[in-house]
Amino acid sequence: MTFDAFFRPRGVAVVGSVSEGKLARVVIDQLVAGGYAPVYAVNPGAKGAPGTAGAARSFAELAAAGAIVDLAVVASPATSVAEVIGDAGRSGVRAAAIIASGFSECGETAREEAVVRAARATGLRFIGPNCAGLVNTKWNLFPTLETRPPRGDVALVSQSGALGGAVLSWAEEQGVGFSKFVSYGNGADLTDVDFMDFLREDDETDVVALYVETVSDGRKFLEAARRLTAVKPLIVIKAGRSAAGARATLSHTGSLAGSDAVYDAALKQCGALRVSGVESLFDVCRGLSALPPVRGRKLIVVTNSGGPGVLAADAAERAGLTLPVPSPALHAKLAERLPAFCSLGNPIDLTVQGDESGYRDVLTMALAEYDAAIAIDVNTPYLDAALPARGIVAAAKATGKPIAATFLAGKTAAAALPVLIEGRVPDFPTGERAAVALGLLAQDRESRLRGRRAADPAAVVGDLPGADHVLPEPEAMDWLEEMGFPVPRRLYAESAEAAARAAKQLGFPVAMKVVASGVVHKTDMGGVLLGVKTQAEARAGFRLLSERTGERGFRGALVVPMVRDAVEILIGVTRDPQFGPVVALGFGGTAAEALHSVVLRVAPIDAQEARAMLAELRGRALLGAFRGRAPRDLEALATIAARASQLPFCYPDLGELDLNPVFALASGAVIGDARVVRAVAGQRRMDAGGSL
Amino acid sequence: MTFDAFFRPRGVAVVGSVSEGKLARVVIDQLVAGGYAPVYAVNPGAKGAPGTAGAARSFAELAAAGAIVDLAVVASPATSVAEVIGDAGRSGVRAAAIIASGFSECGETAREEAVVRAARATGLRFIGPNCAGLVNTKWNLFPTLETRPPRGDVALVSQSGALGGAVLSWAEEQGVGFSKFVSYGNGADLTDVDFMDFLREDDETDVVALYVETVSDGRKFLEAARRLTAVKPLIVIKAGRSAAGARATLSHTGSLAGSDAVYDAALKQCGALRVSGVESLFDVCRGLSALPPVRGRKLIVVTNSGGPGVLAADAAERAGLTLPVPSPALHAKLAERLPAFCSLGNPIDLTVQGDESGYRDVLTMALAEYDAAIAIDVNTPYLDAALPARGIVAAAKATGKPIAATFLAGKTAAAALPVLIEGRVPDFPTGERAAVALGLLAQDRESRLRGRRAADPAAVVGDLPGADHVLPEPEAMDWLEEMGFPVPRRLYAESAEAAARAAKQLGFPVAMKVVASGVVHKTDMGGVLLGVKTQAEARAGFRLLSERTGERGFRGALVVPMVRDAVEILIGVTRDPQFGPVVALGFGGTAAEALHSVVLRVAPIDAQEARAMLAELRGRALLGAFRGRAPRDLEALATIAARASQLPFCYPDLGELDLNPVFALASGAVIGDARVVRAVAGQRRMDAGGSL
Repeated sequence: MTFDAFFRPRGVAVVGSVSEGKLARVVIDQLVAGGYAPVYAVNPGAKGAPGTAGAARSFAELAAAGAIVDLAVVASPATSVAEVIGDAGRSGVRAAAIIASGFSECGETAREEAVVRAARATGLRFIGPNCAGLVNTKWNLFPTLETRPPRGDVALVSQSGALGGAVLSWAEEQGVGFSKFVSYGNGADLTDVDFMDFLREDDETDVVALYVETVSDGRKFLEAARRLTAVKPLIVIKAGRSAAGARATLSHTGSLAGSDAVYDAALKQCGALRVSGVESLFDVCRGLSALPPVRGRKLIVVTNSGGPGVLAADAAERAGLTLPVPSPALHAKLAERLPAFCSLGNPIDLTVQGDESGYRDVLTMALAEYDAAIAIDVNTPYLDAALPARGIVAAAKATGKPIAATFLAGKTAAAALPVLIEGRVPDFPTGERAAVALGLLAQDRESRLRGRRAADPAAVVGDLPGADHVLPEPEAMDWLEEMGFPVPRRLYAESAEAAARAAKQLGFPVAMKVVASGVVHKTDMGGVLLGVKTQAEARAGFRLLSERTGERGFRGALVVPMVRDAVEILIGVTRDPQFGPVVALGFGGTAAEALHSVVLRVAPIDAQEARAMLAELRGRALLGAFRGRAPRDLEALATIAARASQLPFCYPDLGELDLNPVFALASGAVIGDARVVRAVAGQRRMDAGGSL
Repeated sequence: MTFDAFFRPRGVAVVGSVSEGKLARVVIDQLVAGGYAPVYAVNPGAKGAPGTAGAARSFAELAAAGAIVDLAVVASPATSVAEVIGDAGRSGVRAAAIIASGFSECGETAREEAVVRAARATGLRFIGPNCAGLVNTKWNLFPTLETRPPRGDVALVSQSGALGGAVLSWAEEQGVGFSKFVSYGNGADLTDVDFMDFLREDDETDVVALYVETVSDGRKFLEAARRLTAVKPLIVIKAGRSAAGARATLSHTGSLAGSDAVYDAALKQCGALRVSGVESLFDVCRGLSALPPVRGRKLIVVTNSGGPGVLAADAAERAGLTLPVPSPALHAKLAERLPAFCSLGNPIDLTVQGDESGYRDVLTMALAEYDAAIAIDVNTPYLDAALPARGIVAAAKATGKPIAATFLAGKTAAAALPVLIEGRVPDFPTGERAAVALGLLAQDRESRLRGRRAADPAAVVGDLPGADHVLPEPEAMDWLEEMGFPVPRRLYAESAEAAARAAKQLGFPVAMKVVASGVVHKTDMGGVLLGVKTQAEARAGFRLLSERTGERGFRGALVVPMVRDAVEILIGVTRDPQFGPVVALGFGGTAAEALHSVVLRVAPIDAQEARAMLAELRGRALLGAFRGRAPRDLEALATIAARASQLPFCYPDLGELDLNPVFALASGAVIGDARVVRAVAGQRRMDAGGSL
């Protein structure tokens, strides 16, 4: 399909009542004021001959205009929209922005479906209903109710029209320019995925910003985002993190939200930069628009005053940047240039040497060994802020490295702004916000370098063995072994005598675990005996397990060798309603579980991505040479996680899988226990799983 | 001492070169422009008869002025300052602001000490050196280089002059007014503590904001902050959180920073509101200045657009506010007032009903059952933003409840601002920032209600037993038992035979722990045997422990009964360089340790504060009825923590104490292991301890 009809239309018709103050009239006035022509008003209520609406000629129906119209903006009553869309399509209109509301957002789904059918009949594509229209600043095209933003290279795609409008209103003040804007509202036809694909190839757009509350199809979203981030940065505000937020989202869009942790993982996986709100969005856009790439995480802070420099350094470390002190060579050069009272650490505090040449020389010297700089100038009212700004711009030009500026504060520093804008050095309200933006820019660069190759799902193998809802452990272990997972040697015993023989055969000490149809959490009912050291103990243990099971369908005991000196890891798989199969990795054991130290990814993943998960794990020091113990075999863990992530694709009836614990050893890893839960009907699509 | 000489002086002298552009001249011009009189210029370099400097009369020496001068502003060369201070004191000046730099901040400590001696000789008190002066807006007094801020009820105390100056420059734009400002620079005389005490009683100040990099005396700071927060809110920016930040602080102030986690605990304990930077500072000031108390955490978000409302709701939950949906009764009232397409959850989305009466009626209804509201209006360019602002102000007046407004965005919403200012409804740049501010206001209110009673340190008991640097476990356990701590029954065995007897006597199974002078971390060297079940095993175990100890001074084994079904907790005490004794509480075991789940408090604490620590613990669900296990005895844990927090006061030679694990049981708790480390010389003041 062609997006030219939306963004470079040869003619635009606005459909709806054109009385002063009505939506259609506001859109017409916007279009004309923005400099676009030709605009036609279509007022189905008006009888008779063509007239005028503002600066546009008006007609009772589109066909009467006898003009080439590619885009229709529909602001007529909800009940009329299906008919309007049908007429438009038949008159050759190829694209529509349906601003009218009163559809699925308030329960009128049948009405929305009628609009979709009317559009499909003629091949017309549309955004909305319940949307805020669109903008192409480079085509002087503003078919929207929102403020006309300044031109620039950022494209904004917003599920919410109001949020998009707020961003556009704020853009000039924030110093961010836009190439395109589109709000897709209820998303009955075109959505996030379509616009990401379009903007990937749009030469007028260098940065894509996206506000989304729910995605319609998690997998397609991920793929489109991956394709996009291979080419240009994608910044995402995903609302509805909290319980209350998710509820609000629910009532706002009428679609079911997945858990925020899954969204977070998915956005990370596709290389998007997630920001928490509109201010951060502007900060990152400002940085991406103006700055060269941030090629590493070594940051220097140069300031003329201690306090703000320290706050910026704090924020930069929190944002994952590193702030080493200058090398001896650089220190020597700085000491030659600056008097003794300047602090030559990181931050470098220029104090009164923070004039034009001070900033220029110090930043230029420092950026020879740093990847980026934050330059903070606290201007006193009796000094000209344009001078340090000139020094900073000169250093940016001389080094070609990214410098983020912060001129404090307010009107006192206003003289710096034109110099910075002219010199393409972005100014941030505080050093802290500059630090956060640079951290995200570094992340964007890294993710682009690394690439975002998705693992391919494996082919379907078949059904899970047996018929139980939860596979008994012996069957689960056999199944995992067959799939090539490292499982322990094990013997299944159905009598006390058999247990004693099995224990002897495996070699003491052993662990014994209950096998019972009615027991899911074995540990909770005392169903796991550790460190069994004699045959007599094995016999007594078997009887104890049988007793403890009571009415819960005791079948026997699984006997396995004890594992020593292991770190317990959890590897799990579940299904998310938005993104489908998801893989989780964390520390095992109840304590770690309660601490919620789990990293997620949308499945499948390869071993490289699994290693990235291990690196993200809170408490990952435990896997290294912790307290003199040998480091764990990370490769073995990564292999298990990557393989586990393929199981839901191999076995479409797999609902949930918990490998917990997986014993991480100095060499290799072995699965200590496995819980395999069959999907219930419809769960392949809908079950979010209970294990995460 | 009297602060009137600083803030309500009868005359001000400015000492230093008065040539155009010099510091002293800038201060004189500021004083005169601010409307203060009389101002005298003292220019020690000038020979001969009195002259003028700008609008002030100038003299070669203070005595020549023959006038009543309470405050001297010193901007003369560093080498002259001690003499200037001496002269000033002898001429009857009682207060000085030493703006001059070149003292301890660049290593010239002797020069600074000379200034202190000169001041002490006459009883003159001063701020600085290396400070930015002070302000009293209500006395038209601006002896500072910084921007004159608008009047208001916030007092700002800043260690950094530049940070303070940036805040003042920004104040007008941010809509926050100030009563007083003081920067104390190097803090050679007056510091944070003095100004907190002064401002507590200052009728012109309702809110105190403090920027601090290091405190000079942690205990005094805590006490002064507690006294202050009993009366009015205290907002603190504490810089130097990160490693880099702390290093920068070090070079900036020349004093050793304590760990940030201790600062964080101390600020929480004294009821201060910690914010991360200047923007949050303004947000909280704006809220505290304008709003009535936030008496609870139930928040309603009322908006005219989905997206921004959802983002605010997300941020509010992160800030610890709760967002229940309206009660059935309120829902019914709202449904009667609003059309069906409005979303009546939380947020309430008014959509096009977001006009004057819409906001007024809905907020008024909702605040009958909520503690506070955020009202967000996304204004479209063709509507008058003053109208919804009037509705919001009317609701604030009618209900007397706190409403934070967010008008989006920029110029589009500018018409709302005068209405909001007039109606004392604060406007926040985003709903997210409004949410964070309301969360802190609620915290301030709660902490004021709860009060901040400090526990009294216990009296000195004496010295630790023995002479070892690390107490052997048997001695440590005996000592703890003597102090009334719950320790297990235990028998110390110096032979294999004795170990077997001891085990039998205690009843199987037992645990055996190595006692050896050279072993600190027993677990790491395999020095703890668990689940010993027979006398033969005890004998073999004893020999094994002896073998494993090797050259590290084996003495014997401590035999204790095994504890079953316990959650392992760590309770520790150490000494912080800024705050002295500190108590820590967290989960025990290596996994939890690696996850850094520890809560700190400055010691001593009472059981109530210890319970608050338990409630803050990440993963605290483990202490409840987790996985069907009985909940742990929190009272027993709180008692141990409170008692442990007194030990450094009872035993001044106690350097560090680790109770790890403490077994938390369904009834009671018992200390599993104890490490007692004697303080090394000087550590009572300086050792930050290694165990936290």
